[in-house]
Parts: sequence; structure tokens; C-alpha cells
Amino acid sequence: MDDLSDLAILRLTATEARTAIREGRLDIQRYVRATLRRIAERDRDLMAWAFLDPDLALRRAAELAAVPGAGPLHGIPVGIKDVIDTFDMPTCHNSPLFTGNRPAADAPVIAMLRGAGALILGKTETTEFAAAGHNPRTRNPYDLERTSGGSSAGSAAAVADLHVPLAIGTQTGGSTMRPASFCGVYAFKPTWGAVSREGVRLFSASFDTVSWFARSVADLDLLAEVFAVGPAGSGCPSAAGLRVAFCRSPQWASVEPPMRAAFTQARDSLRDICSAVIELELPPDFARLNDAYEVIAKYEGGVAFRNLYVLRKEELHDDLREMVESSAGMSGESLREAYDLTARCRQVFDAIAADFDVIVAPGAAGEAPRGPHPGSPALNLMWSTLRAPCINLPRWRSPAGLPLGLTLTSARFADRRLLAVAAVLDRALEDRQAGSGQGSIST
Amino acid sequence: MDDLSDLAILRLTATEARTAIREGRLDIQRYVRATLRRIAERDRDLMAWAFLDPDLALRRAAELAAVPGAGPLHGIPVGIKDVIDTFDMPTCHNSPLFTGNRPAADAPVIAMLRGAGALILGKTETTEFAAAGHNPRTRNPYDLERTSGGSSAGSAAAVADLHVPLAIGTQTGGSTMRPASFCGVYAFKPTWGAVSREGVRLFSASFDTVSWFARSVADLDLLAEVFAVGPAGSGCPSAAGLRVAFCRSPQWASVEPPMRAAFTQARDSLRDICSAVIELELPPDFARLNDAYEVIAKYEGGVAFRNLYVLRKEELHDDLREMVESSAGMSGESLREAYDLTARCRQVFDAIAADFDVIVAPGAAGEAPRGPHPGSPALNLMWSTLRAPCINLPRWRSPAGLPLGLTLTSARFADRRLLAVAAVLDRALEDRQAGSGQGSIST
Repeated sequence: MDDLSDLAILRLTATEARTAIREGRLDIQRYVRATLRRIAERDRDLMAWAFLDPDLALRRAAELAAVPGAGPLHGIPVGIKDVIDTFDMPTCHNSPLFTGNRPAADAPVIAMLRGAGALILGKTETTEFAAAGHNPRTRNPYDLERTSGGSSAGSAAAVADLHVPLAIGTQTGGSTMRPASFCGVYAFKPTWGAVSREGVRLFSASFDTVSWFARSVADLDLLAEVFAVGPAGSGCPSAAGLRVAFCRSPQWASVEPPMRAAFTQARDSLRDICSAVIELELPPDFARLNDAYEVIAKYEGGVAFRNLYVLRKEELHDDLREMVESSAGMSGESLREAYDLTARCRQVFDAIAADFDVIVAPGAAGEAPRGPHPGSPALNLMWSTLRAPCINLPRWRSPAGLPLGLTLTSARFADRRLLAVAAVLDRALEDRQAGSGQGSIST
Repeated sequence: MDDLSDLAILRLTATEARTAIREGRLDIQRYVRATLRRIAERDRDLMAWAFLDPDLALRRAAELAAVPGAGPLHGIPVGIKDVIDTFDMPTCHNSPLFTGNRPAADAPVIAMLRGAGALILGKTETTEFAAAGHNPRTRNPYDLERTSGGSSAGSAAAVADLHVPLAIGTQTGGSTMRPASFCGVYAFKPTWGAVSREGVRLFSASFDTVSWFARSVADLDLLAEVFAVGPAGSGCPSAAGLRVAFCRSPQWASVEPPMRAAFTQARDSLRDICSAVIELELPPDFARLNDAYEVIAKYEGGVAFRNLYVLRKEELHDDLREMVESSAGMSGESLREAYDLTARCRQVFDAIAADFDVIVAPGAAGEAPRGPHPGSPALNLMWSTLRAPCINLPRWRSPAGLPLGLTLTSARFADRRLLAVAAVLDRALEDRQAGSGQGSIST
């Protein structure tokens, strides 16, 4: 039991930790103690956690250690974005209006995690309501002077900094892909609607999606299995058989040199590996999707926050007040136009995506910016409006050694197939990059 | 204060009661005592209420009576469908899995009602989770041998039977328009997304909509104002200036003679009143919308109930087990096809609807059926997939004296304009029907 050092334990992916626990090489209570020591040591600076009660975590570990571990996540610690209801911890949405808020029940995603044997470790930092208002406090594990992104800042940083192997987030516009790119972790945003969003703070009913962060594609797939994301995917051919499209996206003009270089480097690598790698230019309508996102998210946010505006206006952050006020002035015509553009583009995109095994795009404009502002979701909004499944592949670094992620995407409902393709591509890229000396966080 | 009899009080619409309260002619505590007496007398047979604590209601009435009544619903008792979270009452979803369930907080719609001064009186009967499984127990106030519909059974019946002037419901497929038609009350299902559905039991993320029941169009509009349903409508011309389309809908073959007669009678009446009344036939694609509804609702229901299936399978109703199991077998292709058909038809319908002030359609296949089964939503599903705002106008009766409602609808986001048009049409029809001796419930 004692042959694993703290650091060796912390470096395990969930899939690896599960095997170690099942084989008796890793004790669940030992695991959580290593986790808590890591957090105690690192989180004063990183600030990934909004709530963590070590005594509660140890108690849960003792409970799990006392039962036979049938669940697929038995004893695995998981961080939860603090916009998701948990019965045994506060859920505060990073909002002064919800200080100490205690939901009566777990959100269905949390209930399913616990049912699978996961140890719900604590709540992670978020942009207020995963929408606007107060920024998350979390810093970037690669450079504490930089942001870890938003809104799922704490979940991305906690996984990157080896606090936990898995964390749950959400994405409405770019709240998962962007922090995953900035923090250098794997992440998965499924097709809209694939996982219940009940008990998750509502912002935009059209786009809100439960997502997750991990340190391998296998771990992303493990959670897809726990949440029964479907339909089941067909098998994936070898990397050599894949057809890959590289899409600069209509926002390419805002993409900075380091991300451009990562995009080009990935394309060149995959040209050597895959049977077909082409550059994909989307039809002109797609350039209007970011504007459509703004209209819909602002309107739906106005609906979602109206009760707080009506009842607690003076306490509400200016950003959210403005969202409610501007939503009230929108015309039916502009709303219909925005909703219908996104619906039309979804159909067009899925038809285009059917010709490829995967589409690759920049995961953010560049490396994580300096300062507390969580950066721009401009590179992510289009994929959110398309409701497409997205994976962050964190295999690239800027000249300064900071993480850069590329988004892998495909048609709606092709989630499991996309995960299989990502696993194959990731392995092929790993083989190619082996020994190239990527930057990493200090441990 | 004492010049109003119980029955005179109970017959007041919310708008009328508000005026009476403001003018000092109606005391809030007197109002709730009359309400409680009515319910004590009638609900043993009707079974509209899932939870009602008279002491709590009287306490709330005393609290409201003690403060100056600035809110637009000050002192008005409102019934709440028991799938909506209330902090001071259980929320049980008519499910044995949620017996005694106590949410920690009000859903935003409830918070806004309380903020407007409403007296949240109790929780009303519903189909399990407003989805499937256990039927509501509620009987029809016009004939106790018949259903009051579903899933918002208790809300429709409580308003019809003069327990409360207002009640909140939900609609996913036909859960508002059908019980409103069966019970002979006014009801409004706004455009999808117009009101926050946070804290309302999730069934289908694409269709779930908060709705309300009342005894006048003015009262429907009063709640639209409280919930800030937008965008604001332009004024409505006189009835003589209206262009009205009558749409038999692709389900006309299943419409029974009494509803056919109501439809024809309404058309003939409006031909005399309005400038243009035409018959509208929708394009052939619209005949496939009911099937698309079934695919989407079953898939999204499978997602929504998966946690219960995983964790409490043995206790879950067969209907819900089957929903989860069948959703798992759906292909990405069938899902994309269903989602995209609904999206395309929305655009086509809104363009068609732009040529008319209102579109009129059957609100149900016919009068409320006998027995406990809540009837079919087949006539309502299409309008739900179109996300169109819908009003039930309860001005017709079958030869047996049972209520028949017609649905008034229009393009997405034209909610406030539709309410204005409905008010004008309703008044014109009232003038025409005056003295024609409509059936009514016994009092």
C-alpha cells in the first residue's frame, strides 16, 4: 500500500487510480490524504477551490473504503464546479447573493457520480453563475500571474495542478474549452442535452451543457460512460485511416501567433499520420454565429436572472443587471433570426462533418492572458451554438511554455465516436512528440 | 368588507380581486378563508390539490394583510403545479420517489410571484414528473366521472372550480392546453424560454415551458406582466380589423364531432366579426412534427430520468424505465432528423403566421374522456414543437355541456401581441354568445 509516493498517486489518471485501487495498490483514504496535502500546499496561491472541507472528505473516504467498490469511480476524488447543487456542501455560484446557499439535494450529475462511487471532494471556482459578473479568483497553474480562464476556472486548474484527476464543469459559450486550453488539460463538452442539467445553475437554456476535465482521453470516456452519453459510437479506425479537417474558424483574424503555430504544427503532424488532412472553410453564414450567440445568451440570461433583478436589484452585479435590461429591449425579429441561424447552421455543419472523422480548430485565441480577466470565448462560441461535441487536446505549448489546446469536434450526437477518434489521434501525436520536451507545471 | 358573499369572492378574476382589495372592499384574510372553505367543500371529490396546509395559508394571508400592498398580485391566492420548487411546501412530482421532498428554495417563478405579493396557496396535482408514470387523481369539475386532463390537471381544475383565480402549470407536449380545454378555463403557454424554468422538474429541455391558468385573458396578461414576458406587443386593432386563420391541423382526422362543431362555430362567428377569416393548410412536413416530438421528448426524458433509472430502478414507474431504455437505442441520425425538422418548421410557421393576427386550432380531440386516463395531447404537440405561444379560449361546449377550448397561436415571441388579440376576440365572442345559455359548473 505504501509503495506509491504522494506525487506518484497524484499523477495517476482516474483510470489508472481505479486499477490501483482495485488491485489493492492504492488505499482510498491514503489517496484522499495525498490529495488534501497537495491542495493545502498549492491552493493558497492557485485558488482553484471555492469550498473544501477536509474532514468531510476524509469521512467520505472512510465510508467508501468500508464498502466493496463495485462502482466505476470507486474512491476517485472529483471536483465540482460551484454552480452545481450538492446536498452536503454549499453551492454559491461565486455570487454574494448565494453566500452559504445550501441546496437540499444533489443535482442528477452529482447523484450519478456518487452512485458510481466517486468521492465528491469539493466545489471549484467559477465565474459568477457561470455567466458574467464576478470573475473566478483562480490563477493559472503554469504561471500564477495569468488567468486559468473561465467560467470553469477551478475545475480546469485543479485537474492541471494534480489536485484531482477529474472535475465537472459547464459550458455555455466557451467555459470549458477555453480554461482547458489555458491550463493544458483534456476536457469534453458533449452534445447539448446529452447530460441532465437539472440542479445546475441556469444561464442559457439553449446552450448550457455539463462538461468535464481530466488528464487523458480515456478518463473523458470513463465519465461519458458513467453519464451514459449516447448513442454508442462505432469503432475507430487506426490513425492512418482517419480523415481530418482543419478549420481556422471565422475568428482566425483574432488568433495569436502561438496558437497559429500550434494549429499549423498539428496539421503538419497529422498530414504525416492520417490518410487525409484538408483545410475546411465554412460557409459565410457561420461568421454570424458569434453574434447570434450574443443575442440568444443575452436574451436567455435576461430570463434566467430576472428574478434576481426584480427582487434583489441593488445587490446584483452590473453585468447581470445590464443583461436583464438589454434583453428586455430585444425584438422578436432579432430573436427569431438568431435562433433560426443557429438551427440552420447546425444542419449544414453536421452534413459537412459527415465527410470527416474529426474537425480540428483553435481552442482559444492564444495562451492564457495575464491578469484576473478570464479571457475571451470568441473561438469557442461557434461550436457551442452548433451544439457540437468538443474535446480539448492539450498537446501544444507556446514559446513561453504555456499550454495551448486544440478543439476536436464533429456532428451532434457523434460524442462517443469523437472520443474514440480523439484517443487514437492523441496516441499518435504522443508518439510523435515523445522526447520533444514539452513544458509542464512544477511539482 | 362584508358585502361580498363567499361565492361572489370566489367568482372574481385576479384582476377584479386586486381592485377589490385595493379599494378596501375585500380583505385578504377573508379572501383566503373563503378559498379554504371552497376547497374543504369540493376537493374531496375533485382532488385538485396535492398539498394544502390551511394554517400556513392563513399565516401567509395575515403576513400579507399586515404590509402595504404594492405588488400587482397583493393577496391573490395562486395554485402551483407540484413539479415546481417551493421553499415552504413539499414538492413531490406525484412520484413515490419524492414523497415528502423539501426543496431548500423557491423556483424563480415562485420567487417572482411572492415578490409580486401573491399568496402561494398550495401545490396542485400533476402527472408524475409532468411526463409519464402515475396519472393525476384530479377529476373534471364539470363531470367527476371524467378526467381533467394532464399533466397540469390540478391547476386547471382548481381554477375552473373557483378554488383560486390563478394557477401555474407547465407544458412539454400538451400539458396546459389540453386540461384547459377539458376544464373550460383560460390558459397561456408562452413561447419556449420566455420564463425561467429553473427549479421546475426537468423532462424535455427543448420543450418544457412554464404556463398559467386563469378565468380571463386579462388575468393571463397580468401574469405575463409579472414574469416580464417580452418583447412588448404592439397595440391590437379592433376585432373588425383582424385577419384570422383557422388551422384544422394535421391531426384533424382524430378530432371528434363536438370539437369539429366548436371549430366551425368559431369560424362562422368570426367571419361575421373580422375582416378576413381563412382556412390555413400547413405544408406536408408539419404532419411529421408529432413523431419528431416523440423522438425528442423520449430522448430528452431518457436523459432527465437517467439518474433515477441508475440509482432507483426498482422503484421507478415502468413508463419512465421504458423511456430511459428506449432513449438509449436511438441513433444520432434519427435525433438530428427530429431536431432539424422542428427547427425548419419553426421558421416556416413563423413566416406563415406573419400574414395573420392569430391562428385558431382545436385545443383537444374533443370533450374530456371518461375515466382516470388524462387523454391525448395529439392536438397540442405540434404547437409545442413550434415553440409557439398558445392561449386556450374556453368559450365552447359540447352537446353534453362539457367544455371545449380552441387554441389561439402565433409566431414565436409574439406573446404579448397574441394576448392583446385574444382579449379583443374573446370580448367579441362574448358579446355574440351573450344569452346563448352556456353550461357551467354547479356552484
